[in-house]
Amino acid sequence: MTTAQGTWKERKRPTRLERRFEFSDYEETREFLESLADISEATGRYPDISFGRTHVSLTIQADEATGVIADDQRDFARRVDEIAAAEPAMA
Amino acid sequence: MTTAQGTWKERKRPTRLERRFEFSDYEETREFLESLADISEATGRYPDISFGRTHVSLTIQADEATGVIADDQRDFARRVDEIAAAEPAMA
Repeated sequence: MTTAQGTWKERKRPTRLERRFEFSDYEETREFLESLADISEATGRYPDISFGRTHVSLTIQADEATGVIADDQRDFARRVDEIAAAEPAMA
Repeated sequence: MTTAQGTWKERKRPTRLERRFEFSDYEETREFLESLADISEATGRYPDISFGRTHVSLTIQADEATGVIADDQRDFARRVDEIAAAEPAMA
């Protein structure tokens, strides 16, 4: 069962939020990755990130202890959406 | 059948080179990712990269046309080894 938070997909087993972003060139991809790194350092949250030349995929795993996606993890996802909205991503 | 180039692993189906790096903190991880981005821009080669707070994994796919890992792809792997050697990575 998938519920999209914004365009995040919430998946089960294990519970996680996933989102993929597409970019028109590597420069945009790199700028987005820089912004993500800044959010990670500001929040102490480090999602699993995979990327290539023009795509970035993020996975925010549920809290290990509770198995639930915590509010501050959803906040992290929202901050990612904000920087994506500021980028001309075609996601 | 796995042959390690340095500590790259060469895998089959599909043919590719893989290597994982571990770091002691996110700052080191971020520096390494920056250096990788510089090599990608310099060579026009963009491996599949996934990372978390203290690890980075790279996959260099074989050339789509030939199905073989080309010399310049191996050169890319060597350049990655050089920057890793310059970092205090515990890979």
